[in-house]
Amino acid sequence: MTEPADPPAAASTDAASTAPFQYQCLARDVGTDARRGVFTTPHGDIQTPTFMPVGTQATVKGVTGDLLRQTTATLPDVTAQIILGNTYHLALRPGHELIRQMGGLHRFMNWDGPILTDSGGFQVFSLSALTKIDEHAAVFRSHIDGRKIELTPEHSIEIQESLGSDIAMVLDHVIALPASTEAVIDATERSVRWAQRCLNAASRPDQARFAIVQGGLDETIRAQCARDLAQHAFEGFAIGGLSVGEPPPEMYRVLSATCPHLPEEKPRYLMGVGRPIDMLEGIARGVDLFDCVMPTRNGRNGFAFTDEGPLKLRNAVHRDDPRPLEANCPCPACRHSRAYLRHLFVAGEMLGPILLTLHNLTYYQRIMHQARQAILAGTFSELLQRHRQLAGADKPEAV
Amino acid sequence: MTEPADPPAAASTDAASTAPFQYQCLARDVGTDARRGVFTTPHGDIQTPTFMPVGTQATVKGVTGDLLRQTTATLPDVTAQIILGNTYHLALRPGHELIRQMGGLHRFMNWDGPILTDSGGFQVFSLSALTKIDEHAAVFRSHIDGRKIELTPEHSIEIQESLGSDIAMVLDHVIALPASTEAVIDATERSVRWAQRCLNAASRPDQARFAIVQGGLDETIRAQCARDLAQHAFEGFAIGGLSVGEPPPEMYRVLSATCPHLPEEKPRYLMGVGRPIDMLEGIARGVDLFDCVMPTRNGRNGFAFTDEGPLKLRNAVHRDDPRPLEANCPCPACRHSRAYLRHLFVAGEMLGPILLTLHNLTYYQRIMHQARQAILAGTFSELLQRHRQLAGADKPEAV
Repeated sequence: MTEPADPPAAASTDAASTAPFQYQCLARDVGTDARRGVFTTPHGDIQTPTFMPVGTQATVKGVTGDLLRQTTATLPDVTAQIILGNTYHLALRPGHELIRQMGGLHRFMNWDGPILTDSGGFQVFSLSALTKIDEHAAVFRSHIDGRKIELTPEHSIEIQESLGSDIAMVLDHVIALPASTEAVIDATERSVRWAQRCLNAASRPDQARFAIVQGGLDETIRAQCARDLAQHAFEGFAIGGLSVGEPPPEMYRVLSATCPHLPEEKPRYLMGVGRPIDMLEGIARGVDLFDCVMPTRNGRNGFAFTDEGPLKLRNAVHRDDPRPLEANCPCPACRHSRAYLRHLFVAGEMLGPILLTLHNLTYYQRIMHQARQAILAGTFSELLQRHRQLAGADKPEAV
Repeated sequence: MTEPADPPAAASTDAASTAPFQYQCLARDVGTDARRGVFTTPHGDIQTPTFMPVGTQATVKGVTGDLLRQTTATLPDVTAQIILGNTYHLALRPGHELIRQMGGLHRFMNWDGPILTDSGGFQVFSLSALTKIDEHAAVFRSHIDGRKIELTPEHSIEIQESLGSDIAMVLDHVIALPASTEAVIDATERSVRWAQRCLNAASRPDQARFAIVQGGLDETIRAQCARDLAQHAFEGFAIGGLSVGEPPPEMYRVLSATCPHLPEEKPRYLMGVGRPIDMLEGIARGVDLFDCVMPTRNGRNGFAFTDEGPLKLRNAVHRDDPRPLEANCPCPACRHSRAYLRHLFVAGEMLGPILLTLHNLTYYQRIMHQARQAILAGTFSELLQRHRQLAGADKPEAV
């Protein structure tokens, strides 16, 4: 890849003119490692901690760009909303070359805020018939048409440069847990070498590269991986390979062992996480960025997040309930009664998934806003404590 | 039904205070019977001719209320957008009693514009296992759970008063065509008697009753039916039983034979029609209101209406086309390329149906706006002629 795909529209965001990626910590919590910061990108400043809605196939499922922007419209501290795109999916369909030809992912999906693309490593692990992984590449079969595809670290970067995302993730070697210590060390060390290869292959000055810490549930391996990656010029650091079935306390333990070894002056991203409580526990350990399909996928399945606990809208108990999901929520779903929302799901109407997706994204963004405000106000521990109680009282939230 | 379901929110729209339904003709076309008018309802003034999007199950499929309002937002002459709800569907699910209990259909679906509800007659004809029809009632089995239901003219009005729509349609006897003249006369005369029974059963002063002209493709029977119905105090008149498979010229012929026998001072509604050219041919014959699932259903199936003719977005020809569906269309779909829209359909993303639904509704509303403007400007015949040429050049548009 030599041609930049999506040149920034305004001179003020011209990535090449000044170092376009800067993390600034604005405040630290007194009782935890939570931090309130801002991460500058060519498509706007991201106020952290923040949640990134998942737009796998160049769309956050079921919502237009305007509706997506509405999920943060009432939050005074949001300057730019960042979303996530999936390299694996986009490379297979419609193809990254087409997206490059159409002006890059921002223009293709008409999203002028920041975009992070993952590397494809996790989808290769979770979706594909993986045929072989060696030092050179991961070889797998497409989940769409079964054709054989080779993905190298260099190719992952090439794809992401074609997409023109603000943040590219390095290709990592994700393995299933539990695994032997030997297998975890092997995959982790390969991930570090691949991260370095990604950095060497990168050419776009307007795209940040985030490394990914692996190491399974082993604190020593995680810490070593973090220190190894921290020696290189990545613009941010992610923690991958978690939230893959382990109990949440195990994940929190690994976060506690990992974050202290990551550079203070760079943003930290916990990949694929999670429930509101998981995000708050992550924030308490120093994490700045999160992504998860839970608000969108659960919303499509009729499941709403609320401060009173989860609601399953298909349940008969909502049949004639005139109340909105939440009394003070500004989202389009909360202009309706629970009775109406239940009717939409029972009748199989598209508007049900659309409205609950919007509500859940609005809820997630509100949690992040509350976390940012609480860190500034010195009340983050109380917010965390409230959500620990809420989570403890709930049934498992995944549907 | 004795309790009104949805009392108007503002005193200024209090239906009981003054006669709430008035049709005023603002201008007549010189070369055709087209007319530009306004129909006053408790939920706003409808500028005619107009198209009513179909919201079968208390939602126009795939669009939020805000997005629906956006489809007419750039049309300066639109003061209130009217939509259609389906009595049959709503009575079966979630049930009209529930909707009444939730404050009526306007409040239930959070739509503050006018709503017209059909009588259920057409759905009983087209969707149900119809078991028996006699002078008293239509008896049929629910398409959802198979239970036996009896629908009388009185019950249809009771349901629609529970829903609290602005306009209720009378229950009519719809028969399949072709049919013997004897069968057509029998069903038509029954429809006239049932219309009278609906009028007798009606009690809401804030709800208009529209009669429905039947008579198959027989001009004499249609004219007689129109004259019979015109003797009663209906607030409007519909033409039903058309667009059920007959060639379009047959429908136009019946319209030409029917409209002259309807009162000048009342609005006319051609039910379930149709393609843009069908609506324009209807306007030329004096019709004011239309409804059809075509823009929404075709949109969900990847079919876009444009002034250059129809586009099938799944086609490979759109793969790398950077153009929007239409260059000057203000809809959310037209902020994207055809390539992006095709990707959404190929990838099975909900956003494809959502965006094409919005485009097609915007297109239909624009056609109606152009018709209103053309009647005022004396150029309606030219608009009609352009669309005759466009329709002649097309393949059939239904998908």
